[in-house]
Amino acid sequence: MVTLSDLSEKNRALLRGQTLELASWAFGNAGTRFKVYATPGTPRTPYEKIEDAAEVQRYTGITPRLSLHIPWDETADFRDLAAFAQDHGIQLGNINSNVFQDDDYKFGSLCNSDPDIRQKAVDAHLHCIDVMRQTGSDTLKIWLGDGTNYPGQDSMGARQDRLHDSLRQIYAALDADQKLLLEYKFFEPAFYHTDVPDWGTALLQVMALGDRAVVCLDTGHHAPGTNVEFIVMQLLRAGRLGAFDFNSRFYADDDLMVGAADPFQLFRILDQIVEAGALDTKVSGVNFMLDQCHNLEDKIPGEIRSALNVQEATAKALLIDRDALAAAQAAHDVLGANAVLMDAYNTDVRPLLAELREEQGLDPDPMAAFLRSGYRERVAEARVGGQQASWGA
Amino acid sequence: MVTLSDLSEKNRALLRGQTLELASWAFGNAGTRFKVYATPGTPRTPYEKIEDAAEVQRYTGITPRLSLHIPWDETADFRDLAAFAQDHGIQLGNINSNVFQDDDYKFGSLCNSDPDIRQKAVDAHLHCIDVMRQTGSDTLKIWLGDGTNYPGQDSMGARQDRLHDSLRQIYAALDADQKLLLEYKFFEPAFYHTDVPDWGTALLQVMALGDRAVVCLDTGHHAPGTNVEFIVMQLLRAGRLGAFDFNSRFYADDDLMVGAADPFQLFRILDQIVEAGALDTKVSGVNFMLDQCHNLEDKIPGEIRSALNVQEATAKALLIDRDALAAAQAAHDVLGANAVLMDAYNTDVRPLLAELREEQGLDPDPMAAFLRSGYRERVAEARVGGQQASWGA
Amino acid sequence: MVTLSDLSEKNRALLRGQTLELASWAFGNAGTRFKVYATPGTPRTPYEKIEDAAEVQRYTGITPRLSLHIPWDETADFRDLAAFAQDHGIQLGNINSNVFQDDDYKFGSLCNSDPDIRQKAVDAHLHCIDVMRQTGSDTLKIWLGDGTNYPGQDSMGARQDRLHDSLRQIYAALDADQKLLLEYKFFEPAFYHTDVPDWGTALLQVMALGDRAVVCLDTGHHAPGTNVEFIVMQLLRAGRLGAFDFNSRFYADDDLMVGAADPFQLFRILDQIVEAGALDTKVSGVNFMLDQCHNLEDKIPGEIRSALNVQEATAKALLIDRDALAAAQAAHDVLGANAVLMDAYNTDVRPLLAELREEQGLDPDPMAAFLRSGYRERVAEARVGGQQASWGA
Amino acid sequence: MVTLSDLSEKNRALLRGQTLELASWAFGNAGTRFKVYATPGTPRTPYEKIEDAAEVQRYTGITPRLSLHIPWDETADFRDLAAFAQDHGIQLGNINSNVFQDDDYKFGSLCNSDPDIRQKAVDAHLHCIDVMRQTGSDTLKIWLGDGTNYPGQDSMGARQDRLHDSLRQIYAALDADQKLLLEYKFFEPAFYHTDVPDWGTALLQVMALGDRAVVCLDTGHHAPGTNVEFIVMQLLRAGRLGAFDFNSRFYADDDLMVGAADPFQLFRILDQIVEAGALDTKVSGVNFMLDQCHNLEDKIPGEIRSALNVQEATAKALLIDRDALAAAQAAHDVLGANAVLMDAYNTDVRPLLAELREEQGLDPDPMAAFLRSGYRERVAEARVGGQQASWGA
Repeated sequence: MVTLSDLSEKNRALLRGQTLELASWAFGNAGTRFKVYATPGTPRTPYEKIEDAAEVQRYTGITPRLSLHIPWDETADFRDLAAFAQDHGIQLGNINSNVFQDDDYKFGSLCNSDPDIRQKAVDAHLHCIDVMRQTGSDTLKIWLGDGTNYPGQDSMGARQDRLHDSLRQIYAALDADQKLLLEYKFFEPAFYHTDVPDWGTALLQVMALGDRAVVCLDTGHHAPGTNVEFIVMQLLRAGRLGAFDFNSRFYADDDLMVGAADPFQLFRILDQIVEAGALDTKVSGVNFMLDQCHNLEDKIPGEIRSALNVQEATAKALLIDRDALAAAQAAHDVLGANAVLMDAYNTDVRPLLAELREEQGLDPDPMAAFLRSGYRERVAEARVGGQQASWGA
Repeated sequence: MVTLSDLSEKNRALLRGQTLELASWAFGNAGTRFKVYATPGTPRTPYEKIEDAAEVQRYTGITPRLSLHIPWDETADFRDLAAFAQDHGIQLGNINSNVFQDDDYKFGSLCNSDPDIRQKAVDAHLHCIDVMRQTGSDTLKIWLGDGTNYPGQDSMGARQDRLHDSLRQIYAALDADQKLLLEYKFFEPAFYHTDVPDWGTALLQVMALGDRAVVCLDTGHHAPGTNVEFIVMQLLRAGRLGAFDFNSRFYADDDLMVGAADPFQLFRILDQIVEAGALDTKVSGVNFMLDQCHNLEDKIPGEIRSALNVQEATAKALLIDRDALAAAQAAHDVLGANAVLMDAYNTDVRPLLAELREEQGLDPDPMAAFLRSGYRERVAEARVGGQQASWGA
Repeated sequence: MVTLSDLSEKNRALLRGQTLELASWAFGNAGTRFKVYATPGTPRTPYEKIEDAAEVQRYTGITPRLSLHIPWDETADFRDLAAFAQDHGIQLGNINSNVFQDDDYKFGSLCNSDPDIRQKAVDAHLHCIDVMRQTGSDTLKIWLGDGTNYPGQDSMGARQDRLHDSLRQIYAALDADQKLLLEYKFFEPAFYHTDVPDWGTALLQVMALGDRAVVCLDTGHHAPGTNVEFIVMQLLRAGRLGAFDFNSRFYADDDLMVGAADPFQLFRILDQIVEAGALDTKVSGVNFMLDQCHNLEDKIPGEIRSALNVQEATAKALLIDRDALAAAQAAHDVLGANAVLMDAYNTDVRPLLAELREEQGLDPDPMAAFLRSGYRERVAEARVGGQQASWGA
Repeated sequence: MVTLSDLSEKNRALLRGQTLELASWAFGNAGTRFKVYATPGTPRTPYEKIEDAAEVQRYTGITPRLSLHIPWDETADFRDLAAFAQDHGIQLGNINSNVFQDDDYKFGSLCNSDPDIRQKAVDAHLHCIDVMRQTGSDTLKIWLGDGTNYPGQDSMGARQDRLHDSLRQIYAALDADQKLLLEYKFFEPAFYHTDVPDWGTALLQVMALGDRAVVCLDTGHHAPGTNVEFIVMQLLRAGRLGAFDFNSRFYADDDLMVGAADPFQLFRILDQIVEAGALDTKVSGVNFMLDQCHNLEDKIPGEIRSALNVQEATAKALLIDRDALAAAQAAHDVLGANAVLMDAYNTDVRPLLAELREEQGLDPDPMAAFLRSGYRERVAEARVGGQQASWGA
């Protein structure tokens, strides 16, 4: 049985220091275009989302930050919200803009041919930057719903130019210690073309801005068959991997729990991170976030499960015998090299992580501990009346 | 320039007799999980949807039927609705059940492990059959959102058994002149598995029911790269192709206008229909329906455009020189056989269809005629207040 | 640490009794359309392939059978070959026909519009049946390269009719204790359509033959995103799952080692097998075969690795707590049910399997034992001159 | 009926000036990993390939150049070959390197971890540059088979570094008027990862070289669902689109005739070219090439058909009413803008192109003229004995 002591001192430190950022919207209701199901206990305010996020952190110990979405998390006093979070052991993280749910954005936001709507979309980002100053967030995260549904609907090239012009204005408004994070997505909500469909486009756009513009890789935003870990490697190599949006998918952008659809892929992604020495956010600047929709499963346990999935994949990636791997690779020993990787993957790291948690004063089984706590029952009873947080159509 | 006289007498008759069924929900608002945009003039009642459908029929002359969706089109008196339709030159067509938008169906309807919910879902279909008796509809159309999001969530095999048992009860309740139409879908809203994911599953389920159970092929419900016209051929060969849901897609189930994403595929589908002699609904029993979401484009013009796209693909398929094709095929003349097909596809059939319309007393350019008519402006002004028809989340 | 005693008596018996069939061509050279690389020690005759297969069986203990491919494995005296195999602890298994490498089959074999070529292809199968009588094989396995590259090249429907007619003749020639196994494939070598592209088509064709016609599921022969384990369940439910061709894929029909690309999928497939009680070939009639191409990796170790991958996935599937799973499913506990599955998947079963091997007098580490044996070096030295077995273009 | 006079003077000039480059290997035998079929009359030498290419040019008038592949087209005296080509009205075009068919390249060429093999691969390119000097070619085209089949087989990041280092040496050896053209490919012959899988990687690699390094877009080298014309636009926008390899695909890299699988996509690609003003190779530097495998169809007619397909798509793209398109786009008239595009696509441009050919003294029907010419029969008789040109495994 593998234990913490099987890891090198350095790798133990990396594992102890690993952190994930949660997303506030993961605690609200989500669904498909066909239906969003409501659930008892769903938060009604950003404050209640922070309470839920704090539960995930309480049991996993690796999720100390929370991303906000504007306007979904609009509130009267963001400094107060940040203080409330602080009191709950949570730091407010990235600010995510939302320019895809106002009627004005039907034909695009930052890429719209109408200059007034582009200006409105730019202004929405300037507002986000203002929120960042109040919450102490250092990253503005931009995902756009922009695109077209039919060939000819708009000029794809002109839209790239408009996108650059809009991003340029937003980037210019950032403080010197703030970053712009641009996320790409293969398709949806636009079906014929999206304006930032792939890592190449995102990279060209952020390179045209400056050093503090980086790319966000959402693990569900690629074409079928795409080797996602290759892109991780490339963005790291280009010095532009700013963050992950972790989730998993069987078909499209399913936003399932990370590691649920293809745990081996998650392990391969973490392997690239470890190989490149990018696991420590403070060193690499890569922010590891969960971005998921818990349509059917309970939300807080869903977040706990996801955090554990990433942690387990990380522990496995840290267990890879890098010297043996390099030797087998150099010898063109295909089976040997693959076996080194699979040996780590096939290892059951759950006891090792239980050991880590006990070392940190946490319950060795976060899920069981949370389910025992009665929290779910309490909030289901308390959070009655008001409008449950939700998103989508 | 090709004219009607270039078609054989038989093919001219087929073209003159071609009909498409419209879907009532195409006239309501639609969208993605991120946003449903509202539009001026959107119908608020089934009666207003019928008015809109009648416009499509007025200008195209090939869309004399309208599918209803229960409960989206629930109304006090379905006989009255049918009479209203009749007065507008529209016949009420299939009745589509909806067992995916009630909170009870979160974990499935006809496949749910909970017998009470299964019964509720079966009862919803019995209600649809009752509606059919009032509207004079002969087909109950079933598409299910049933499935699971995570491996292990439920037993896929047990769900097939439950599905059969539920369908059996519904089928037994049908009158002798009524049909059951089962639609398959690759994914969405469920992401790990859907209970009727492919034509093989649909076929097995309807074969287990009886002769009046048939399969509906939605052109957007397949895996990437699937040869859809092959499935058309197979279902015809098995005597179980009951209907099409026409639409088009670039990636997933995009529900764009049919023929917009891949007009050549639409032509190949019609070619199979013509080859098998299945174009005449009264002979083949195949019901050709449009099932689309006009998220961004105007709805009535979107339906007109789609009907014309199918009609143009049909005219091209009827122009194929079948003797020359057979001869080239028999000679293993790959390029020759392909050229016969492409020769028809590359022909501009719009003048021929304009001729057909004039022959029938219609405007040769349906789109221009509708846009000139002022209908859109009138309903935008008239349909104020009330709840616009919509669907989804 | 999990041990054999953690399995029920019944599951221990299933694991002990598990067998896989090897494919003779896995020991020959393979490659892509761009290049087939030669390797020292590659067999030159069916006899040498049997020697190699016997090595896999010597170390894994679960691969006692070998499939032959005619004419790749054509030999003067098949009874002698069978006796030779017997002496090496190997039983000759399925006979695989090959009607895709003769110039006459350029436009198809069993589906060809030319009756002479169809007859030639049927005769090739009759020859295979004759071989079966000599080798004692009970299954004729048919995979066809038939299809077309361009729309219009041939009538897809007419080809189905010809396929049925050809298969009917072949089926009629089988002895009463022989089976026909039909394999489907999504694409390649034909690109526009293949004549048996999916499980639905294969099922319709074998149902039209009789009870002793069944379907072979090759894990690499599906569209991207296909839920393969669902098809496993369906074919079992229909009583027509005859065999697996195990391998793995990232993109197309890559024919990589099974479990290498998506070990979680392999586990889910075995889970369906276990759930349906189909693991014991003698009871279920399902033949589990490896069908892989070792383009870059060593072939015997590649087969050993693959056999172990299937065995490990099986052990995990047998470890699933079926009662807990059923309880969570019935309670609609999405996370709980998934956790039961993942708990088994995340378990390291390698010690348990080492225990099993020691119990059976085998080396606990088959790969290390084989590499130590010196076999590779011996055959590399001995098998010089002559034509290495290969396949493909 | 549309005629040449419906095009603007400028667009008529563009159409008259359009050229495509042919590939020498298109005239040799090709196939799949399962079988390469031989055909009567297949060239045995580069000289005979030039004769065949000259036939395509004789009848289409738009294919005046021919790409060579080294070593497939290795010959004693390249100056003599160039003179022979000149005499046949053909200019020798790009030189394509081949570092994927020597046993040494089993584990890669320019990315191989073995420095000797990397050097050998670099040297192969230096030889190609030497050939270029003799043939007067200005472009070195590089497509690599490099990649891995299994996770862990090699370090993907280290391979990028090696690739850069190798390309740097090759680029440095180019003359000042020579270009380096790097082609990307999603998968095959490597299955887990390819070293230049996407346009982003190709772009980063060529940007790291210098201004005379550009990207080649093969229309068959993308993931399912990829919007290829978007990439065309992006590479043009970045000033790095060097060339097209035209062909078409239903599933993987099928290398079918361009426009055969999705003629609408070909039209959309040409639309982007026209929108960006990149149709004139002399102005834009974009070289339009055909890169196809005629596995089943006749090769010279296959090339003629493909050239006509590109020409027809181009004529349609030139017919688009750009002013009407811009106006509809600006008005967010989705259906109107799409209709402008489709109006051009649905036009039958074959009469217009027949007119163009007659204007240029060519037969209006190139295919019929070639088939009448008796060339096929002559070469089938003459080219007997010797080794037919082929490729692949």
